[in-house]
Amino acid sequence: MQLQGEIFRENSLPKGVTDFLPEQAESITRIEAMLGSTFELWGFKKIIPPLLEFEEMLAIGVDEALREKSFRFEDRQSNRLIAIPPDITPQVARIEAMRMNGYPLPHRLYYNGRVLRHVQSQSGRSREIFQSGVELIGLDSPEADAEMIAMSAEVLQKLGFDSFKIDLGQVEFYRGIMSELPLNQSAVLNIQEAVGKKDVSTVTSLLEKLAISDRAKNEICALPRMFGGIEVLEKAAASVTNDRSRRALENLVKVVEILAIHGIAGQLTIDLGEIRGLSYHSGVTFEGFVPQVGEPVCGGGRYDGLMGRYGKELPATGFAFNILALLQATEKNGTLKPAERLSFLIFNNRADRCAALQLASSLRSQGYPVTRDIIRRDLEQSMQYAERSAISHIVVVPAEDGQSGKLQIIRVADRATRDIPLPEMIESLSAERIADIFQ
Amino acid sequence: MQLQGEIFRENSLPKGVTDFLPEQAESITRIEAMLGSTFELWGFKKIIPPLLEFEEMLAIGVDEALREKSFRFEDRQSNRLIAIPPDITPQVARIEAMRMNGYPLPHRLYYNGRVLRHVQSQSGRSREIFQSGVELIGLDSPEADAEMIAMSAEVLQKLGFDSFKIDLGQVEFYRGIMSELPLNQSAVLNIQEAVGKKDVSTVTSLLEKLAISDRAKNEICALPRMFGGIEVLEKAAASVTNDRSRRALENLVKVVEILAIHGIAGQLTIDLGEIRGLSYHSGVTFEGFVPQVGEPVCGGGRYDGLMGRYGKELPATGFAFNILALLQATEKNGTLKPAERLSFLIFNNRADRCAALQLASSLRSQGYPVTRDIIRRDLEQSMQYAERSAISHIVVVPAEDGQSGKLQIIRVADRATRDIPLPEMIESLSAERIADIFQ
Repeated sequence: MQLQGEIFRENSLPKGVTDFLPEQAESITRIEAMLGSTFELWGFKKIIPPLLEFEEMLAIGVDEALREKSFRFEDRQSNRLIAIPPDITPQVARIEAMRMNGYPLPHRLYYNGRVLRHVQSQSGRSREIFQSGVELIGLDSPEADAEMIAMSAEVLQKLGFDSFKIDLGQVEFYRGIMSELPLNQSAVLNIQEAVGKKDVSTVTSLLEKLAISDRAKNEICALPRMFGGIEVLEKAAASVTNDRSRRALENLVKVVEILAIHGIAGQLTIDLGEIRGLSYHSGVTFEGFVPQVGEPVCGGGRYDGLMGRYGKELPATGFAFNILALLQATEKNGTLKPAERLSFLIFNNRADRCAALQLASSLRSQGYPVTRDIIRRDLEQSMQYAERSAISHIVVVPAEDGQSGKLQIIRVADRATRDIPLPEMIESLSAERIADIFQ
Repeated sequence: MQLQGEIFRENSLPKGVTDFLPEQAESITRIEAMLGSTFELWGFKKIIPPLLEFEEMLAIGVDEALREKSFRFEDRQSNRLIAIPPDITPQVARIEAMRMNGYPLPHRLYYNGRVLRHVQSQSGRSREIFQSGVELIGLDSPEADAEMIAMSAEVLQKLGFDSFKIDLGQVEFYRGIMSELPLNQSAVLNIQEAVGKKDVSTVTSLLEKLAISDRAKNEICALPRMFGGIEVLEKAAASVTNDRSRRALENLVKVVEILAIHGIAGQLTIDLGEIRGLSYHSGVTFEGFVPQVGEPVCGGGRYDGLMGRYGKELPATGFAFNILALLQATEKNGTLKPAERLSFLIFNNRADRCAALQLASSLRSQGYPVTRDIIRRDLEQSMQYAERSAISHIVVVPAEDGQSGKLQIIRVADRATRDIPLPEMIESLSAERIADIFQ
């Protein structure tokens, strides 16, 4: 089969997925590596869940809405429905239940993967999501929650975001207010939606019709305004009347105290009306934001009930970074510029490639990227190739095979040309020495 | 939904996929990182193709057999058939045709991804394949072919395989012999299968019935024996009579000569009966083998026709590593043992966690993994936890908050205990210093 170039270029990739070319692919790889090394510095170990799961196994751990978005198909082998995971946390929960009994608790696990989700045709949203995240299983203390948030903050600091914000919620605060009210589910969902949108007037009009106490109405009405700096915690403490919400608030205060020790109190905002968390969340939740990017770059929280659904009752908390949101953010703030690195294009003037190949090999063994200019072209054309390929220097292997003991080295940026002793190139080249030569 | 633990553990993952727990996940990550850094040292740039493609776009670049193995489904958005790629090379070819026109040729691209393939129910084969590979696009010279093979060899050497083998073929040699014969396609396929299996008696009996010259019969019969060290090249040169095969052989000889400069002549075997390459191969092909692993750990070759099928006529060569085959091989040869690395569990005796958190933070900023022992337990239990979690040292933050200026440090392996000055832990800890202290 063969298609005309122009025809298929128009429409050659399904909507909602994309190719990442070298510049962006390098940034993604650097972000993922930085996240991985940060997670490891906090004692987390990587696991790699598969790209296929039984759909019913994933369904245990995802919302109905997310379940609907998963790519599902009949398995030719088992005749059961299988799916590409739309989220990795349920996979980690399954692995925890099935496979981790030989490891002592608590478990600190991290992953770096890609998930697929169906999206609305016209939404312009991505169907392929790059997720790197952690799960901390077996701990219910506030310090575990704080560990998640402090790690997120550390990543954002390392990526050069000076003015990031972490927005903290506590789903039990809202549940405490709502749980004792005699409301049907649709009323609860309507209120929840309006509170989530901070739509005070809709909340008020919804409440007017309901037969609940004024105290309850006031508490619900106050939710969308329970938003701001950590002073919100005091305001909430003054207004809350039920035990469940009070415990939630005390828990959140403890987490904030620990985060102050971590030095990130100034980056925190509190949002007790933030109730859009996944249904499995059961305590402190959070989202991280950076300037100029509308969606959160990370999010997560406590989900003490999830492991139990997989047959292993354990408290747990976790979060994930959205790698492509981080990519977008780093492109905007320009903090992820690749380090200037010595790299070489080896250009040889004559057919004998022996000297050129040996030089390339010894430079690589010293850690420098080396491209061999195998194509037949003149030095000027090779210079242009090096320039457009971001190669810093060209080394010309002379026709007389370097018997003079000297090679010619050209700095691509300004085409300055110098001689350099061959033994030095082969044995002990340093960036400083190259800088010296070109001074 | 909730399932009984014991029930779902039995049958909780589709066949042909698996979870990688910390030990194996770390090895996979190290192998992938090593491949990536090697490819970059050779001047290759990473690209990241998506997990979804239009099926017809993949079909341009894969065999019918592989096409049948792909996971396909109707796209809700476009009503076209989409697929999870069963191979990454066709994706790179599409990207080359669509997206790479702004980059000067030749293009050196690499990728690291996972593909899915349906397999026979009872085959026990993996449906999820971890591939890392390169494509070198725009070069037709033997040095480009040699570059692929030299890179494979470098990776296998870095992974500690002393006795790897690279098996070289040249599909044009076989095609030269077959192309001029008046045979129907089924006869060609039968011969091809028997030659591929080195089944000389079947080849002979198939040929007996055919109305072709004795010279042709002899050449075909010789194919399964065109296997061995590089002396096979001379044997083949003496026997070959058609131009196409002769040119193929000359090309292979040049590649072998360049590989000799790279110092890997001793690892090469020649197999001119090796014709199991993908249909798009058009020149030198190769597979890499290591002891005790039956399948090749890497393979690839020249495919000058493929880019043209995507609308961009360019010569190209490439290859990919099978990461899970490499994992199996490194587990058998034991060369990928993780480096001994200082790591700490911070244990504090009293409620105030301030000193413990600050110590953890400063050790992490020096590059040491630090786990906080948030759970309530005694030192002996924490010691067992550290031991089973491969943490090298425990630091005990004393009840008196380190005002003596000393901390207690315990080497987990033998529970030897020493004092260490707090400022040193915070400012400038080295592995050598820790070794000194415990001498």
